[in-house]
Amino acid sequence: MPKRKICVVVTARPSYSRIKSALTAIQNHPDLELQLVIAGSALLDRYGNAVDFIEKDGFSIAAKVFMVLEGENPTTMAKTTGLGVMELTNVFYNLKPDAVITIADRFETIATSIAAAYQNIPLVHIQGGEVTGSIDEKVRHANTKLADLHLVCSDDARERVIKLGEEPESVINTGCPSIDLAKEIADYPYMDFDPLEKYGGVGAELDWKNGYIVVMQHPVTTEYKESKKHITETLKAVKALDYPTFWFWPNVDAGSDGTSNGIRTFRELEKPTNIHFFKNMDPLDFLKLLNSSKALIGNSSAGLRECAYLGVPVVNIGNRQHRRSRAGNVMDVNYEQAAIEEAISNAIEQEKYESSTLYGNGDAGVRIAEILAKVELRYSKTISY
Amino acid sequence: MPKRKICVVVTARPSYSRIKSALTAIQNHPDLELQLVIAGSALLDRYGNAVDFIEKDGFSIAAKVFMVLEGENPTTMAKTTGLGVMELTNVFYNLKPDAVITIADRFETIATSIAAAYQNIPLVHIQGGEVTGSIDEKVRHANTKLADLHLVCSDDARERVIKLGEEPESVINTGCPSIDLAKEIADYPYMDFDPLEKYGGVGAELDWKNGYIVVMQHPVTTEYKESKKHITETLKAVKALDYPTFWFWPNVDAGSDGTSNGIRTFRELEKPTNIHFFKNMDPLDFLKLLNSSKALIGNSSAGLRECAYLGVPVVNIGNRQHRRSRAGNVMDVNYEQAAIEEAISNAIEQEKYESSTLYGNGDAGVRIAEILAKVELRYSKTISY
Amino acid sequence: MPKRKICVVVTARPSYSRIKSALTAIQNHPDLELQLVIAGSALLDRYGNAVDFIEKDGFSIAAKVFMVLEGENPTTMAKTTGLGVMELTNVFYNLKPDAVITIADRFETIATSIAAAYQNIPLVHIQGGEVTGSIDEKVRHANTKLADLHLVCSDDARERVIKLGEEPESVINTGCPSIDLAKEIADYPYMDFDPLEKYGGVGAELDWKNGYIVVMQHPVTTEYKESKKHITETLKAVKALDYPTFWFWPNVDAGSDGTSNGIRTFRELEKPTNIHFFKNMDPLDFLKLLNSSKALIGNSSAGLRECAYLGVPVVNIGNRQHRRSRAGNVMDVNYEQAAIEEAISNAIEQEKYESSTLYGNGDAGVRIAEILAKVELRYSKTISY
Amino acid sequence: MPKRKICVVVTARPSYSRIKSALTAIQNHPDLELQLVIAGSALLDRYGNAVDFIEKDGFSIAAKVFMVLEGENPTTMAKTTGLGVMELTNVFYNLKPDAVITIADRFETIATSIAAAYQNIPLVHIQGGEVTGSIDEKVRHANTKLADLHLVCSDDARERVIKLGEEPESVINTGCPSIDLAKEIADYPYMDFDPLEKYGGVGAELDWKNGYIVVMQHPVTTEYKESKKHITETLKAVKALDYPTFWFWPNVDAGSDGTSNGIRTFRELEKPTNIHFFKNMDPLDFLKLLNSSKALIGNSSAGLRECAYLGVPVVNIGNRQHRRSRAGNVMDVNYEQAAIEEAISNAIEQEKYESSTLYGNGDAGVRIAEILAKVELRYSKTISY
Repeated sequence: MPKRKICVVVTARPSYSRIKSALTAIQNHPDLELQLVIAGSALLDRYGNAVDFIEKDGFSIAAKVFMVLEGENPTTMAKTTGLGVMELTNVFYNLKPDAVITIADRFETIATSIAAAYQNIPLVHIQGGEVTGSIDEKVRHANTKLADLHLVCSDDARERVIKLGEEPESVINTGCPSIDLAKEIADYPYMDFDPLEKYGGVGAELDWKNGYIVVMQHPVTTEYKESKKHITETLKAVKALDYPTFWFWPNVDAGSDGTSNGIRTFRELEKPTNIHFFKNMDPLDFLKLLNSSKALIGNSSAGLRECAYLGVPVVNIGNRQHRRSRAGNVMDVNYEQAAIEEAISNAIEQEKYESSTLYGNGDAGVRIAEILAKVELRYSKTISY
Repeated sequence: MPKRKICVVVTARPSYSRIKSALTAIQNHPDLELQLVIAGSALLDRYGNAVDFIEKDGFSIAAKVFMVLEGENPTTMAKTTGLGVMELTNVFYNLKPDAVITIADRFETIATSIAAAYQNIPLVHIQGGEVTGSIDEKVRHANTKLADLHLVCSDDARERVIKLGEEPESVINTGCPSIDLAKEIADYPYMDFDPLEKYGGVGAELDWKNGYIVVMQHPVTTEYKESKKHITETLKAVKALDYPTFWFWPNVDAGSDGTSNGIRTFRELEKPTNIHFFKNMDPLDFLKLLNSSKALIGNSSAGLRECAYLGVPVVNIGNRQHRRSRAGNVMDVNYEQAAIEEAISNAIEQEKYESSTLYGNGDAGVRIAEILAKVELRYSKTISY
Repeated sequence: MPKRKICVVVTARPSYSRIKSALTAIQNHPDLELQLVIAGSALLDRYGNAVDFIEKDGFSIAAKVFMVLEGENPTTMAKTTGLGVMELTNVFYNLKPDAVITIADRFETIATSIAAAYQNIPLVHIQGGEVTGSIDEKVRHANTKLADLHLVCSDDARERVIKLGEEPESVINTGCPSIDLAKEIADYPYMDFDPLEKYGGVGAELDWKNGYIVVMQHPVTTEYKESKKHITETLKAVKALDYPTFWFWPNVDAGSDGTSNGIRTFRELEKPTNIHFFKNMDPLDFLKLLNSSKALIGNSSAGLRECAYLGVPVVNIGNRQHRRSRAGNVMDVNYEQAAIEEAISNAIEQEKYESSTLYGNGDAGVRIAEILAKVELRYSKTISY
Repeated sequence: MPKRKICVVVTARPSYSRIKSALTAIQNHPDLELQLVIAGSALLDRYGNAVDFIEKDGFSIAAKVFMVLEGENPTTMAKTTGLGVMELTNVFYNLKPDAVITIADRFETIATSIAAAYQNIPLVHIQGGEVTGSIDEKVRHANTKLADLHLVCSDDARERVIKLGEEPESVINTGCPSIDLAKEIADYPYMDFDPLEKYGGVGAELDWKNGYIVVMQHPVTTEYKESKKHITETLKAVKALDYPTFWFWPNVDAGSDGTSNGIRTFRELEKPTNIHFFKNMDPLDFLKLLNSSKALIGNSSAGLRECAYLGVPVVNIGNRQHRRSRAGNVMDVNYEQAAIEEAISNAIEQEKYESSTLYGNGDAGVRIAEILAKVELRYSKTISY
């Protein structure tokens, strides 16, 4: 029997670490063949080209899709998505996969969904059923309605997808593959690499060995004109605290230019001496960095997922993760310097939390591959009510 | 106060008649300005260019969007949609509407939804919440999840949209604008025009004045390779009955080439003497033709909607309208000559049915305009559960 | 040493027969590998899908590119070309050819040129240096300026390309590959197949064995609004002569809808009894049909090329071949029924002409392959003056 | 009589200053209406968004076209061009200009040419007929073959366009509009603004009032993999000389990432103390800066054009301006630190040269507007030989 060809489309650097353990499991499964497509900002140097990491991890890339239209505004986001539909349609036409996987809820993930669904290719949606603010909320649930099989990350998400009219047997809680990575490094009691040496970056030369925090704050697309103001509040808070800080540049998104611009302006004017900036990091190294840190600050979903499992305190700023399920490690604050400053201070004082399995217990990748090998694939469905 | 600019995107000939009364009401409303965009197959001569009718009806067209990629297969359907996203993004960027209306569930309607939602323009979905088979089913509910306001056509549809997680106050049953047109002509006891004379067409010169039937059968996209076989069953049944028949060419869709090809082959080989073919007809004339006919045959949604109101018997063939609400005038049959033949015979014998208001009572257009003038517009939402 | 990969892009049915002998020679050459790309209208049933012929001829297709935007007007022609650039860029990126061949001067051939030249892939232009009217004239010479190697069909063309500033050693007269096919069948004294039986088609059942003519008339893009009027003059002339006629439907081009529409309208109204219509024909069969005919009518370049070699009389109508080199077999007339009628009458009376080698002597394909195997390939050049 | 609508497409920051005086003259001409389209990198912050300058200069923008696909490699250059064809086709379809102007030879200018020529809109090419290396060479002459009217900048260029087969009466030497700006500021004996204060930028705080040089070096697309090495030679030479230097970031082009990356790496590692970096400058201010400088270094065409008129010494590095006409102010050197260093030293010592009118005498804008108002416009042509 020929192997089932499973095509996974990764459109951004952070999506790669969210899916990596599943990629490995698919590649290793005797009945599956992995077709890995790298697209969008995952290909761009400006946002931390993920290709090098991916190839070093032993994956071969079936197709590269340049589709990001410059401009970082809502108009170019929409056009990037349209272009993505056209390009990915070609890719699937050529690769002839037995199933296509679209990941989560970034704006361009709907391009994967349309290109597969319209060509009668079974569509698998990973990480559906969650709740957040911003355009991601619309995209995620639209992906659910286009998909035929739903591999979700929590019981809460599973219930929600079923409420959305999907047949219960097509909705399976596998846990989140990002937790698999977290599990891999959870026992590192100390950092086994020097981030300054290994990743370069720019900014202050930190003495980080006695404690540091990590910042990762993305623009929120439905508030994209405010990006610069929002990031500046966080920058002021972090500078005022004068605590060693590793800061990651944002994703490509409408507003990322505002965010990046805010960071650049602040650096030029305020010359903070406690912040070092990175563009990108190998996902495992990033998790080790988080695991040994005092706290993660910003609005990355890593705060709610991986940090829940690792027990790392999180200061979650603003609306980006609005209503997404969270464990006890998360403190929510608004875009205000004072509140952010206080929350970070508290987080630094805080011991690590108990590990939570809210988003899985570390075997999601293997479970996903198992399901993909056995499930009956279909490309047509009708709402359940 | 400036008028609210309401942008309506019509992507196919049949969508125009489904929305026409709303266009009129928006145009006439003192607080609204209509921006009418004609796109896709509605512009193409091959599928019955709708522009002439539209301009004759007194509407001016704000933008024309050529987006149909030739090939009539699932791959070109997907690419047409991607191109549509890019093109409509430009259109909305230039027209700066206060709200965009996307209609129903044709595959390319999701392009309208993405182009609006991603640019933070409030999106209104008309005719959501229904149930059918085929790719339309996925597209319709994905449109719902991208839209901010839902103007549905029946109570059943309203309940379903609310179950999909939309706030009840954002889901309003206005009835279907297509019923408004049906109401306009419902009292025509006889035909006031000669279709052969007015619309030409090709095929047999019918003696239709003592009774005739109408056929409109579209390909079903998820079964697109079967189109030719399916249409041939209907052709054989209709030929065998030897009853005067007006037959309409299908929409542009994956498979329409199979359907068209089936019709052409049958004509060439079988030379039916009781069938006359039309490409297109003014929507009001089409309704008059239906209203005076003995029955509508095929899988057009007009059978479930307008014919319910008009009381015209309908022979509904195959899966295209699977699970869509229907009144007592509809008889469902499979793609089999014998069954089709028998059902048509019965329908011809049948008296007209009582008028049903399942899809509205004829004031949908006016209600839609009222709502658009008054409702609070938003472009962001969160699922209700 | 690895074989040189030669990528040939065929964008329309007639381009295939113009290049077929070169494809064979490239495929058979020990130092070359053929990468055949079929794109544009060559893929569409409506214009006579060429894929079946091509595969039957023993070629495998490296990529299929759907790029034709429906509408058949100057706007969709331009957008089809833009889309072609995007699509072919992907194709070359994946196939990594050592050289790309663009053929002649159809509007979309510039897409091939840009996609190759901008990616620093050596570009070979076949059939440059000729002169005609219409947009083809601009496209052909622009292709020349984008190309690095020029394989032309006549001494006249070679001189013109050199005048355009190309280095003489990069401009080689190989003759036209279409003449190779003509040579193959030049000795057929009679038809070895029955066109009605083998190709079906529609229209009158002709008694063609005692003499017939062939018509092939394309729209002229710079006169696209006149297409219907122009074709009608020819139709009237042909009907009036009442001589057995095989008529081929036109290419996809701005205006082809006018041409097609003119033919359909004429058929419906005038019901000509001496014309049979074909969509498409295997290129060799088409040449046999020409070779046994009394004359070719219309504006096909086959009249100037293949018919020169075969000695078949040609009535060339209008501006499409304006100033292209012609042998003694061509009579030029304007779009006027009377003139066309008289010219056809004369042509039917005329004996065959002497064979002319103006466009080559039948070994172009082999010479092209030889050159491609040996020439030094480059992708950069500077004008010679 | 209605005014002639002249649509000018500006696709990059430097093109704007090359055309500005013509824009003013068109806008002021009683028989002309200006339709200004801003596209491509001219819209992007990363490359110095030109929109602010343009609006401050009193022009209103008829359309903005986002078309730059991220990646800065040959593949995305080609796809950007394809997308540009599609987008600009829409723009011209909507604006219905009487003539379209395409400027010079950047890779994406052919998109303007195709979108106009294929829609039968008269195409005017500005700055054709020159000679350089790189892909620009192919693009420029292809633009000539697509254009109907040629407004060139020098007698040498005029002769070359005529040799390319254009009718002499369609080729007019107007001089270059960029010289008009140079004339405007030619008499500034001193700087009337402080560049550090007015434009910010990053890098060393220079004491520039006693003499400075300006550097502007773009990547060469046909050598794009070498960009980083090339720029580094210049950086080392400039650092070694330790003379106050204003340095401008490069254009968006394949390779600009290499150039930008080279600059960033050098800054980080070598921390030069005599270089200040700017992203962008108002064109008039830029010319004032040049006029008061000791020399311009790099490969900008401003060195050959504006600096010829201003008499500023130029060190021209590498192949980008290969064979373009130059006056006595230009010294050519290769990509070698030692040679560059020596040439800069000499240039700093050198007095200003006599003003040369090789590229015009300062009335090009007015002459262009005059011609556009009076010339007979056509969209079809045939080669002259």
